[in-house]
Amino acid sequence: MTYKNEQLSEEKVFKDPVHRYVHVRDRVIWDLIATPEFQRLRRIKQLGTTNLTFHGAEHSRFNHSLGVYEIVRRIINMFEDRPHWNKEERLLSLCAALLHDLGHGPFSHSFEKVFKLDHEQFTQRIIVGDTTINQILEKVSPGFSQKVADVIGKTYKDKLVVSLISSQIDADRMDYLIRDAYFTGVSYGHFDMERIMRVMRPIDDQVVIKSTGMHAVEDYIMSRYQMYWQVYFHPVTRSAEVILTKILHRAKELFEDGNYTFKLEPVHFISFFNGDVKLDEYLKLDESIVQYYFQLWQDEDDEILRDLSERFINRRLFKYVEFNPNLQMKEWMKLYKLFQYAGIDPEYYLVVDSSSDLPYDFYRPGEEGERLPIHLLMPDGSLKELSRHSDIVEAISGKKRTDHKLYFPKDRIEELEDKQLVKQIKQILYGQGEVENVR
Amino acid sequence: MTYKNEQLSEEKVFKDPVHRYVHVRDRVIWDLIATPEFQRLRRIKQLGTTNLTFHGAEHSRFNHSLGVYEIVRRIINMFEDRPHWNKEERLLSLCAALLHDLGHGPFSHSFEKVFKLDHEQFTQRIIVGDTTINQILEKVSPGFSQKVADVIGKTYKDKLVVSLISSQIDADRMDYLIRDAYFTGVSYGHFDMERIMRVMRPIDDQVVIKSTGMHAVEDYIMSRYQMYWQVYFHPVTRSAEVILTKILHRAKELFEDGNYTFKLEPVHFISFFNGDVKLDEYLKLDESIVQYYFQLWQDEDDEILRDLSERFINRRLFKYVEFNPNLQMKEWMKLYKLFQYAGIDPEYYLVVDSSSDLPYDFYRPGEEGERLPIHLLMPDGSLKELSRHSDIVEAISGKKRTDHKLYFPKDRIEELEDKQLVKQIKQILYGQGEVENVR
Amino acid sequence: MTYKNEQLSEEKVFKDPVHRYVHVRDRVIWDLIATPEFQRLRRIKQLGTTNLTFHGAEHSRFNHSLGVYEIVRRIINMFEDRPHWNKEERLLSLCAALLHDLGHGPFSHSFEKVFKLDHEQFTQRIIVGDTTINQILEKVSPGFSQKVADVIGKTYKDKLVVSLISSQIDADRMDYLIRDAYFTGVSYGHFDMERIMRVMRPIDDQVVIKSTGMHAVEDYIMSRYQMYWQVYFHPVTRSAEVILTKILHRAKELFEDGNYTFKLEPVHFISFFNGDVKLDEYLKLDESIVQYYFQLWQDEDDEILRDLSERFINRRLFKYVEFNPNLQMKEWMKLYKLFQYAGIDPEYYLVVDSSSDLPYDFYRPGEEGERLPIHLLMPDGSLKELSRHSDIVEAISGKKRTDHKLYFPKDRIEELEDKQLVKQIKQILYGQGEVENVR
Amino acid sequence: MTYKNEQLSEEKVFKDPVHRYVHVRDRVIWDLIATPEFQRLRRIKQLGTTNLTFHGAEHSRFNHSLGVYEIVRRIINMFEDRPHWNKEERLLSLCAALLHDLGHGPFSHSFEKVFKLDHEQFTQRIIVGDTTINQILEKVSPGFSQKVADVIGKTYKDKLVVSLISSQIDADRMDYLIRDAYFTGVSYGHFDMERIMRVMRPIDDQVVIKSTGMHAVEDYIMSRYQMYWQVYFHPVTRSAEVILTKILHRAKELFEDGNYTFKLEPVHFISFFNGDVKLDEYLKLDESIVQYYFQLWQDEDDEILRDLSERFINRRLFKYVEFNPNLQMKEWMKLYKLFQYAGIDPEYYLVVDSSSDLPYDFYRPGEEGERLPIHLLMPDGSLKELSRHSDIVEAISGKKRTDHKLYFPKDRIEELEDKQLVKQIKQILYGQGEVENVR
Repeated sequence: MTYKNEQLSEEKVFKDPVHRYVHVRDRVIWDLIATPEFQRLRRIKQLGTTNLTFHGAEHSRFNHSLGVYEIVRRIINMFEDRPHWNKEERLLSLCAALLHDLGHGPFSHSFEKVFKLDHEQFTQRIIVGDTTINQILEKVSPGFSQKVADVIGKTYKDKLVVSLISSQIDADRMDYLIRDAYFTGVSYGHFDMERIMRVMRPIDDQVVIKSTGMHAVEDYIMSRYQMYWQVYFHPVTRSAEVILTKILHRAKELFEDGNYTFKLEPVHFISFFNGDVKLDEYLKLDESIVQYYFQLWQDEDDEILRDLSERFINRRLFKYVEFNPNLQMKEWMKLYKLFQYAGIDPEYYLVVDSSSDLPYDFYRPGEEGERLPIHLLMPDGSLKELSRHSDIVEAISGKKRTDHKLYFPKDRIEELEDKQLVKQIKQILYGQGEVENVR
Repeated sequence: MTYKNEQLSEEKVFKDPVHRYVHVRDRVIWDLIATPEFQRLRRIKQLGTTNLTFHGAEHSRFNHSLGVYEIVRRIINMFEDRPHWNKEERLLSLCAALLHDLGHGPFSHSFEKVFKLDHEQFTQRIIVGDTTINQILEKVSPGFSQKVADVIGKTYKDKLVVSLISSQIDADRMDYLIRDAYFTGVSYGHFDMERIMRVMRPIDDQVVIKSTGMHAVEDYIMSRYQMYWQVYFHPVTRSAEVILTKILHRAKELFEDGNYTFKLEPVHFISFFNGDVKLDEYLKLDESIVQYYFQLWQDEDDEILRDLSERFINRRLFKYVEFNPNLQMKEWMKLYKLFQYAGIDPEYYLVVDSSSDLPYDFYRPGEEGERLPIHLLMPDGSLKELSRHSDIVEAISGKKRTDHKLYFPKDRIEELEDKQLVKQIKQILYGQGEVENVR
Repeated sequence: MTYKNEQLSEEKVFKDPVHRYVHVRDRVIWDLIATPEFQRLRRIKQLGTTNLTFHGAEHSRFNHSLGVYEIVRRIINMFEDRPHWNKEERLLSLCAALLHDLGHGPFSHSFEKVFKLDHEQFTQRIIVGDTTINQILEKVSPGFSQKVADVIGKTYKDKLVVSLISSQIDADRMDYLIRDAYFTGVSYGHFDMERIMRVMRPIDDQVVIKSTGMHAVEDYIMSRYQMYWQVYFHPVTRSAEVILTKILHRAKELFEDGNYTFKLEPVHFISFFNGDVKLDEYLKLDESIVQYYFQLWQDEDDEILRDLSERFINRRLFKYVEFNPNLQMKEWMKLYKLFQYAGIDPEYYLVVDSSSDLPYDFYRPGEEGERLPIHLLMPDGSLKELSRHSDIVEAISGKKRTDHKLYFPKDRIEELEDKQLVKQIKQILYGQGEVENVR
Repeated sequence: MTYKNEQLSEEKVFKDPVHRYVHVRDRVIWDLIATPEFQRLRRIKQLGTTNLTFHGAEHSRFNHSLGVYEIVRRIINMFEDRPHWNKEERLLSLCAALLHDLGHGPFSHSFEKVFKLDHEQFTQRIIVGDTTINQILEKVSPGFSQKVADVIGKTYKDKLVVSLISSQIDADRMDYLIRDAYFTGVSYGHFDMERIMRVMRPIDDQVVIKSTGMHAVEDYIMSRYQMYWQVYFHPVTRSAEVILTKILHRAKELFEDGNYTFKLEPVHFISFFNGDVKLDEYLKLDESIVQYYFQLWQDEDDEILRDLSERFINRRLFKYVEFNPNLQMKEWMKLYKLFQYAGIDPEYYLVVDSSSDLPYDFYRPGEEGERLPIHLLMPDGSLKELSRHSDIVEAISGKKRTDHKLYFPKDRIEELEDKQLVKQIKQILYGQGEVENVR
């Protein structure tokens, strides 16, 4: 038996709260899970700062990666005897599912923004680079690692395989919606995944949905919508992320400023500051390292870095008000000046954050951000784009929703001695009433 | 209104996957949660290394502490109009419930063992020491912090309050059983907590259980039993803990050995090595700091520290076989010598680990480890010790079960060049068959 | 203590799979539950023929009635100290919640249609008529029973009380959505009821929703939408209902036809056939009586009654095709004649069934079927109609969706000897393809 | 393709709250489900009178039968490639699982007791008799129906097949424990069925359990124990059953008494009274028929039949006290006489009911009620009887527990005019205190 086909003598299972059990029989999968690169995902939270809002959301990307693998495994089991499905793609699909998030770093969102990184690119670099992961994949067959990277990069020729892990209804999304709902404890995020898997059909280069399963898909899309606005874009979570982003900005600024000396040299960050991150440096930076520095930085000389780090560690977050960038720029300008006047650096302490989501999109060929639509397989064998058949989906299709909030440290303002100034600032921020502290 | 009685204008809630919502109305509780000392619990996992076996078990002690508070809150709500219950003890009970685990450090079990610490003592030191927690408690009334510490230390005069958080059926245990079952995903750990709360009655200085609820209590005791053997004492988890303990031992040894120089001075550990831990040093050491060092130590000069750290970080755990300390000491001696001969230091690589549990104990006054029994309130008003009424509990009462395992690095043995030696070692370890890798 | 305020010495509970426990402390409620009229609800299924599609849906109206009571009880507990809420209405609200479905008969939908009955009218007749229920209510205070009837009839002066059990988001709907989802096992029907209850506020004469809870309400409305189309209007369930309705029609027709003699006189049905149902006759007719007759009627001389009864009892249901009454009347006419020609009476065997639902409606004062909208309580204290604030609700607001299907006995057609005729009929029914048997 | 191997063109599913979906692909299974004999199970409750205690327990035997089929289907899927398992037995196993409860009548327990019937015998008669079920089975192959009957009767030669549906850990028990827990809503009855199925191994003529799954089996046995005492033997349920049994006794007695004339001849019961039940008569008697008669009998001339029927229909149950048949016979004799003196016929109104259960039994060859034990498959390939390896199981093994209660109509006693007599009776019944009305 070749390595490619090698089976474990007994199936191994991982107890999983979401899928009950994750089943592994392939030696290749078992070996991939045991690599340092994959184990590293245990030290990176799936939802970054969300646990500061929903305390249950402390689960790691390791968790989710196993989940996506398991879903793809189950789907493929059902595809086994269907036309259009190429059995030869089984192992490739499983590997791509397992490894699709391998390149995520700690608090990806903020890091990518500040340091102009792309986690997907790192995923591919880990897969084709000089890593244990790569060695295992190449043992399957020479060039296999590149295939896995191509599936994740969506350039692989068999689009059916690609669509299993990247489409508007894929294993990745199904796992994270259910998993994140489970760990946060919210009641959104439930849909009948088992039914969706049963009505999936491989047709040519895409996975389509038997029309009898349309309602389960509607339910999935609504779950996605609710999870985005109730969990992923929760304003308190974004407050933590605003602070985190500003910490990174400040540290970079101090590093670039030749005159400032860190008490302990931030060795793990230097290549990030320099914009030239090597693969092994990237792999070393997990959440514990970042948290370690943030804790050290609570004792730094720079007041801003110190304050922001302390806020992040002790969860003393910014408050927020609704903000309309089209109508309220004048107010923002005024606040900016008042903050400066008060000695609160507005670059770090007066931050607009915008979140936007497009719950489902029909096909807009050629347009930027083009997303392949979900197709229903009708009883007569024809395909129909989902939003043309579902009233609910039609209602929200292609409608991007954006939310802007203005974040600031309310405590700092209230501590100002110039009470007139406090009043002025508050007047602009709250108008009549005071903001309600929503949890 | 005094601070003690101050209520938030609107009830605040935390979304909790186990209790649905944790409700906070008291200003004192709200303020305690916001302290750095309490927020620190977010950076300490509830189950230490268990997540290396059950990947869902990544929840923190912050999580559990809120849960215990919530259970006590609900119990007290039901006690409100009962005789024997002193309404004045409400806030004290809530604070003690919330703060009972405050002194836990990272990987408590191993740290306490190696450095001879006691987390409960630290809990009390945080509460009565120079901390934000203490300031808030003293604002309630002078001396209030000591009362909270006394409840946690079980020396408080009103034993009813003590028994809410420390008895054989208390809020602490009820929360962790259900919570740990939820996050690991195992099906043990379920019992009807709502029913148990409904049948709890305050009688004199203890909480007793109406006899009609006996079966729910049986179920709880069986859950406890199963969780201990299936989750808490899982041999794979213990393997990780064995390694962790040995890392700490080795680092201490190197530190004490005047000749060894760490690449980076382990500043956060020094007071631990010296056996003289100040409160503020203790509070600084969370899991991210520990993980940071373990990652650094992968590059240390000392081979043992390097190897063990790398094993822990990358989850390359020791394997194990059953071990009977009474019957197999001779085999152990032989192995010890063979390991030495093979150049594998048996002090670090041949480790016996023993776990034992007593699922329920009746009352043995005066004996060491004396535990107060659970009493049933019979229809005629009398009290009856649980094991005298329940067949099942009687069957397991007072029966301590111990499990011994011998841990070792199988990979290292198999890599030995002297194949005769390998055979000899394996012969002793496995006898006829080879150990099965149980997950 | 008066009867009105009498409390049970210990709270009694009913174990309920949906609400965990239903709690009863009021003697009045306890006595109402024990009446023959309320116990009768055990013999009437909540979802009529739905169990023929979803086999778990065998739960009774007794079940649901306790659930609605429990929800109202919990809401009122939270209202207790709020302004606008009149504490004096507590018992009235609880009684109305418990009794709101008291007048439901077996298979209400079909019975009401065929015999021109109205279950709500019977609910009121039971409450104010000569019944044990009435005696208990009048013991509370003279005229109390009429108040309860008024709340259920929506004519009671305090509209706040009315809205608890009849509005677009009331205890009735919340219970049945969650309960029916639980017993059918579908994954729709979940929403965060606890959160909705927490954000409900009594304002003047209605219950409004704090705007922070809007998403939970969106989720509820989507659940409702999905339950209607996935469960309540399931085409297989409707097939059973079509047959049931036709059985009742046929029996009535035979009864009115002076020449037909039933083998056993249908004594329990006579007043229904005559359109003059006395209260005690109505109360006697539960599902077991109806099923008894249907079983007898399998042996009747009349072929149609016999066949339809046998179909209902043994679940040999009609098949169906989509039907468009606007475009396909000509086809229907042709089928009608072909059925007649084939000797299959189209009055009984070619049935158009239409279902329609309006998931949410904004306020249309004066229009027929006017429904009070859901109002959000904004942070500034103003009220805002839900669909003006929620994109999703706006998208489906006021949009009635109707589904028409044509039902027929496929087996009968296929058994026809004239194969040319079979082909002709099938040609019209299916056009090209054959209908798929969706489960 | 032969009928035996015929597959449906698309897999059909039943939505099931317990197993999510029940999957059917075999034409034979699909046809069996559609028979009148199997559909009849919809009209027989799984738990008889239990719904009078746990209102959710209204599920039918149809429900459970599908569930047992589904479990066996899943187990066989996993057995497919194992040695010892004969693939040829697949369809036989599925049919036996589906049909194993076919012969259950309404309220089996009471009917069997009063009329000396045996539901298992009826199951076999339906399978081999002149029924639609039999026709379908014989189409598979001549003699196939007898094989199915043999599996259910435990006489089939391949004991492995037998043990799937009748052993101390079989598909029947696993389904009913989980299902009954789901519908009653109790928190007992949960165990990790998926894990148990994964560790089942066919060895020779039995299904054994891999020793690594022992704790899941312990959990199952404890669930079983709790369900028996908390649900199946609940004293309120037994009260209803006592009344039901007495109704049947009384009706039989009146029938046998030549002088009594029923208002409506109990045609459906006559063969039961005569002890000579034909198969078609048996199949006609479902729960709706029985309920119909009980309703009629509320208007009978005989006071006892009338009263008991009215009690059953309106849930006016008997109360109970603990009773020790060894110690309290004298008290019982006294009560008997006092009841006679009071004009309350003790034969019907003073009833001792005993329930007993043996949670798990080791092997006692040759003894009556011999039950095959559960064997663990040890790592070395040997088999070990469960109670020798599990402390918990050992503790309860072979220990039969019996509970006796004395039932009586408390209301009748309290209505007696002779208050001295009332006092005397109560004195004996309650001794000092009054019985608590446990729900």
